[in-house]
Amino acid sequence: MGLSTAFTRLFGVEHPIAPAPMGGSAGGALAAAVSRGGGLGLLGGAFGDRKWLARELAVLAAEGPGKPWGVGFLSWAIDVGAVEWALERGPTAVMLSFGDPRPFAERVRDAGSTLIIQVTDLEEARRAVDLGADVIVAQGTEAGGHGARRGRSTLPFVPAVVDLVAPVPVLAAGGIADGRGVAAALALGAAGALLGTRFQATTEALVDPATAKALIEARGEDTERNRVLDIARGSSWPEAYTARTLGHPFLDRWRDREHELAADPHEARRAYEDAVSRGAIPPLPLWAGEAADLIDDLPSAADLVGTLAMEAEHALARAGGHRPPRL
Amino acid sequence: MGLSTAFTRLFGVEHPIAPAPMGGSAGGALAAAVSRGGGLGLLGGAFGDRKWLARELAVLAAEGPGKPWGVGFLSWAIDVGAVEWALERGPTAVMLSFGDPRPFAERVRDAGSTLIIQVTDLEEARRAVDLGADVIVAQGTEAGGHGARRGRSTLPFVPAVVDLVAPVPVLAAGGIADGRGVAAALALGAAGALLGTRFQATTEALVDPATAKALIEARGEDTERNRVLDIARGSSWPEAYTARTLGHPFLDRWRDREHELAADPHEARRAYEDAVSRGAIPPLPLWAGEAADLIDDLPSAADLVGTLAMEAEHALARAGGHRPPRL
Repeated sequence: MGLSTAFTRLFGVEHPIAPAPMGGSAGGALAAAVSRGGGLGLLGGAFGDRKWLARELAVLAAEGPGKPWGVGFLSWAIDVGAVEWALERGPTAVMLSFGDPRPFAERVRDAGSTLIIQVTDLEEARRAVDLGADVIVAQGTEAGGHGARRGRSTLPFVPAVVDLVAPVPVLAAGGIADGRGVAAALALGAAGALLGTRFQATTEALVDPATAKALIEARGEDTERNRVLDIARGSSWPEAYTARTLGHPFLDRWRDREHELAADPHEARRAYEDAVSRGAIPPLPLWAGEAADLIDDLPSAADLVGTLAMEAEHALARAGGHRPPRL
Repeated sequence: MGLSTAFTRLFGVEHPIAPAPMGGSAGGALAAAVSRGGGLGLLGGAFGDRKWLARELAVLAAEGPGKPWGVGFLSWAIDVGAVEWALERGPTAVMLSFGDPRPFAERVRDAGSTLIIQVTDLEEARRAVDLGADVIVAQGTEAGGHGARRGRSTLPFVPAVVDLVAPVPVLAAGGIADGRGVAAALALGAAGALLGTRFQATTEALVDPATAKALIEARGEDTERNRVLDIARGSSWPEAYTARTLGHPFLDRWRDREHELAADPHEARRAYEDAVSRGAIPPLPLWAGEAADLIDDLPSAADLVGTLAMEAEHALARAGGHRPPRL
């Protein structure tokens, strides 16, 4: 039967589901698998590393030819050249997250690509509409990885965004890792859901087996938002963004002392580098969302998209007192 | 048609909706109106003030006779006597929130009253099952008023609780203020929703007109969790709980300096009392949840219950691609 929404109709995809374009891990294999499964595949363009993108675009072209696809960038981190370079590859959509999308929005639209803007508050949502966003992703603070320091929670945030930006379709992001969450997103008025952590734990995500295992074992209460790990590893993420991560020795040491750490990070950075080089800690934080409780397997992303959609349909039917479709 | 759930069947009510038993404001008129509207009315027993309860029970008996009703208490604040006193009045349900429910749970069950336990993390949920809870309320950090300092967000928390406590029915609380939120709660697997701030802004809540007006005007981003106002007003709420409130002059002054304030609260308390006596600030903080964006009217709670249920049914039908019921 399928869940038809403004999002599925806009992209001509079967299911209202997209993976977060996670930098480094949402590569061509993941995007292709999501496309094969009936969702919209998105590449994690992040900082605009063209070498990485070129490699992953080749994978995508080999594994998922002829399907709609998109690429996500961090607005605060890229220059116009990165977007233009990507647009020359003909993406169906370009997604801009975190920071000021103004320098890039018009170019995306002029190139005929669908403009997706991720927002973390109502003011950003308003500006995204003004910039002509075709799709707005409303990200709640439950999300794994980076987000607004003072974030909104997905459940109350999504309907507020939906009301503000109508008729622009909204994707809900943050705290969604199973079909019930996708169903809830649709019930809130969203046209679909964008899932990050759940797609990290798939066979196609570019993460090492230890990361996938940690995500499967993690509980939501093991996650917390912090900037400690960005400071300790010398990341250039702006102060306005924290990241939801799993526990970490540096977090235990510096939790609630971020100002102190930021004021004099040098020794902590050396200690972090030392620990990485000794193999005592992984080079990157383990980004994970609060929906980690709901992740307990390592499926193919292609199968996952179909499972999520079927579960969502079932959840909506059950909740509404309709006869559920057969699972 | 109606949304039939384990909650509606357990209590024999029409709609899977209950108001949070808000101390001081969820009185007999509100409980009676909710009952008339087809939900489960709950009195805000809070600290167990018998004089207040006796008065509000009389109102409830006069305005809503013969319907199921319940009373909520703060587990950390009451003694067994308060629960026994309430049980003698024959409540359909007793709801225990925040703190250790063990001293009271067995008495509630022995009296034949339905035991509702509100939880803020999975460990509390596990313990609530062990205590024989008949209904578990999973409260997310979006909620207005008090909640766990390190709270979970409703969207990912509810399905995790549902999975953990099945087949015990779960109510979702926190961040829900319209029918879309109720629908999302059901899609997540909850058997209903418990709404606080939304019911504060009804004609039957015991709040002054200025509070109702402030809730209607408030936006979710105007709310923040803090303990500053509890410390400043000399409240006995334990350190483990913060409260989501609207902005406040004392909050601007002490935000992020809670430890400093708690270490030497005397001067701030005098200043708070002075400001209250001068009429510069209201005696109580303005508790409000993050779903405040969705509240823009002051209906009767009786009408509100029906509207929420109808909107929820509509949202589920729309999301699931079914023909929506007529609004």
